[in-house]
Amino acid sequence: MSKVDQILAHIDATFDAAQQRWIDWLRIPSISAQPAHAADCRAAAEYACKELASLGFDASVRDTAGHPVVVAHHPGPDGAGGEVPHLLYYGHYDVQPADPLELWHSPPFEPVLVDGPHGKRVYARGAVDDKGQVSMWLSAFRAWHEQTGTMPCRITVLIEGEEETGSVNFKPFVIANRAELRADIAVISDTGMWDVNTPALSTSLRGMVYMQVDLKAANRDLHSGMYGGSALNPINALTHALGQLKDADGRVQVPGYYDGVRDISSRQANQWAALGFDESRFLGDIGLSVPSGEKGRGALERLWARPTADICGIWGGYSGPGTKTVIAAEAGAKVSFRLVPGQDPQKVVEGFKQFMQARVPADARLEFTVFGAGPGLEIPTDSKFVQAAAAALAEEYGRPAVMTGCGGSIPVVETMQRELGLDALLMGFGLDDDQVHSPNEKFEVICFRHGLRSHARLLGKLGRA
Amino acid sequence: MSKVDQILAHIDATFDAAQQRWIDWLRIPSISAQPAHAADCRAAAEYACKELASLGFDASVRDTAGHPVVVAHHPGPDGAGGEVPHLLYYGHYDVQPADPLELWHSPPFEPVLVDGPHGKRVYARGAVDDKGQVSMWLSAFRAWHEQTGTMPCRITVLIEGEEETGSVNFKPFVIANRAELRADIAVISDTGMWDVNTPALSTSLRGMVYMQVDLKAANRDLHSGMYGGSALNPINALTHALGQLKDADGRVQVPGYYDGVRDISSRQANQWAALGFDESRFLGDIGLSVPSGEKGRGALERLWARPTADICGIWGGYSGPGTKTVIAAEAGAKVSFRLVPGQDPQKVVEGFKQFMQARVPADARLEFTVFGAGPGLEIPTDSKFVQAAAAALAEEYGRPAVMTGCGGSIPVVETMQRELGLDALLMGFGLDDDQVHSPNEKFEVICFRHGLRSHARLLGKLGRA
Repeated sequence: MSKVDQILAHIDATFDAAQQRWIDWLRIPSISAQPAHAADCRAAAEYACKELASLGFDASVRDTAGHPVVVAHHPGPDGAGGEVPHLLYYGHYDVQPADPLELWHSPPFEPVLVDGPHGKRVYARGAVDDKGQVSMWLSAFRAWHEQTGTMPCRITVLIEGEEETGSVNFKPFVIANRAELRADIAVISDTGMWDVNTPALSTSLRGMVYMQVDLKAANRDLHSGMYGGSALNPINALTHALGQLKDADGRVQVPGYYDGVRDISSRQANQWAALGFDESRFLGDIGLSVPSGEKGRGALERLWARPTADICGIWGGYSGPGTKTVIAAEAGAKVSFRLVPGQDPQKVVEGFKQFMQARVPADARLEFTVFGAGPGLEIPTDSKFVQAAAAALAEEYGRPAVMTGCGGSIPVVETMQRELGLDALLMGFGLDDDQVHSPNEKFEVICFRHGLRSHARLLGKLGRA
Repeated sequence: MSKVDQILAHIDATFDAAQQRWIDWLRIPSISAQPAHAADCRAAAEYACKELASLGFDASVRDTAGHPVVVAHHPGPDGAGGEVPHLLYYGHYDVQPADPLELWHSPPFEPVLVDGPHGKRVYARGAVDDKGQVSMWLSAFRAWHEQTGTMPCRITVLIEGEEETGSVNFKPFVIANRAELRADIAVISDTGMWDVNTPALSTSLRGMVYMQVDLKAANRDLHSGMYGGSALNPINALTHALGQLKDADGRVQVPGYYDGVRDISSRQANQWAALGFDESRFLGDIGLSVPSGEKGRGALERLWARPTADICGIWGGYSGPGTKTVIAAEAGAKVSFRLVPGQDPQKVVEGFKQFMQARVPADARLEFTVFGAGPGLEIPTDSKFVQAAAAALAEEYGRPAVMTGCGGSIPVVETMQRELGLDALLMGFGLDDDQVHSPNEKFEVICFRHGLRSHARLLGKLGRA
């Protein structure tokens, strides 16, 4: 029996206890958005800290201006020094508010095991996001600790308490503790699987530039009869410019927008095609039938690997009932650009300004507000970490892991990249129907079990067993 | 001394009394929008009725579902029968609310005579709109009555009390009394002069089609990260379509939009050019510098004789502070088309629907609401009525009257046209700085005097003196 097999056997033999630790942690209502739960947040942090300390970690609960951060270090196998990789595990102990309470079938902080189509599942706020997923790797650490007395890799742990409120104090904490947080790769379980039988690694995340443009014309609202035909109408001008954001093929017309955008590899294209993603059903669920976006690109490619430009809001003039014959003094819009790896967010910001300036009349005064400009991120699929994770998942599930993209951005991944220079291994075990952030959040026990075992395998593949 | 000169001399000799009647009428706070002033509205109507009765008119105050209408008839010179024209004088005795009261320099219903750059002026709510302008023709009637014992034309008078609240009950009144209101031409003094020395006749009015378009896409708001690149964005689609409303030369792209639109005559073009309209100053006053509208057209032509398309309102998605990464379920806009004579409003309605349908993706559901569709109106400048009015004004002012257009529409003119088949002679004496609808409304006494004399001259030119 190999070392890893021995550890997996131990995990199976002690699974009930792992499940119990997960459930105990869920009982603490660590809602970061509600000041009344500040003590619960600290209790949840201390729960994790105590667990890590019991596994040989040098663990502490560190204060911030907000909820505390759990930091823990394990030196890895005796004397291994720089020979084993240094992994930084990131997770969060805080949870979303549980409202509306009346929609829950059982109290959100009294976890229950209920039968479902995939076996038992646990219902509770935080069941999956992120206490459930963190509990998997904590129990994987325990299995290694109980079977070997140490960890096979050097490990640093960061568990924050403000992920659900924007990580306002977490990012400064990371910056202030850069030296202490050095590592080779970040490991994060806060994403999902392709389906209950198919594991996934998220290897690309779209970034985002979010801008507001305000177009100002006359110094006051005007009567459209008196001034129509002479005075600049800012809504006409704004729609004229924004209406050209994409060409007939769905390509974004911002100058230089596609600079650095690479086509996906044929291997990636084939893998995504093989997933049999049903875009008709995806769109049918929201009442649509015809795909939007760039022509000549696959559905998942458009969602995960191509940049977009969506106007998220527009306003100007009169929007009440009936009529008002007004030429407004100004109009505005909010635009989100989802970026893919290779695009320079600052170039997109400047490009959008140029795009607008080139399309509005001389009298139109444009004002821009940049609310965010983060790049798309890519984890090289040929890195030893991704390869090890892929192998661990393939062995656990008996089928290869899907390398997925993620249409949205995960801010902490950008923080790891920008502040610590770390790529992130996004190995998550949630399912689409887990009701994250909604009433009746749940996590499948089978997902928890495979996730725990996959984490144990990953440590074995990367470290010195 | 001609009969008209004799009457003008009488007007000058009795001018103080005419001014006093005007001022007395202004003391009645006939605010049609405020139910508390219903009795004042009736008192203002009775004031006019009594005045007309004293001039040999068969005058009455007629009830409607709202404020009453004054109707009066004069048969004209004895035995003239159909030999003299039948003029229908329209005006309104109601006034706008006076708020905000604190901005008035003197109480709005206590008229005061104050020195200004053009001599004395009267400050009061209704000073010009429309009691002042109606008082001019009432005093012109009095001069004819006192000097000849009759009127030189057949005359019908209609003075309504709901012009400032949309004439809701006036139009049904006109329709119900069509037979009684037969005439040859409507005479209305509710417009302005070109400047204090230059009289004007408004001979064309733009009409209007006002529509709302709602564009619906998904059955709920979507996350732009999850769905961007696959789901139709209704704001993108709406701006894409509406952004094409005008081409680079400012021509409206609605199919068939210019069908029936005639170029102005060279005489008209020359006359308007001779006015030396300073569009730079017109735009400078509102903070703009570059004319909008159709290229290659004169400034007044664009304002008075060319149709427009102005988006009066647009909305969709998130417009609050900061960001929301949403793809909205729907978006909408309100569009006003100012029409010129010759355009068919129904064709414009259908054309706009076609325009939109042709430019939105298959999944976009469009809903249209038509809030109004009225044609542009033109009073033939070679009619004997316009010619007589032009001659009367030229003699009074010593310079020709300008034939102006009016960028807005005046609903009562359309009612006269549609319900009674009457063209309207729009001979008004207001100035741009009269503060109509604003605090400190005023009317220049010199405008009142010339207006009164011009009305007396017009009656002489059209009737049998």
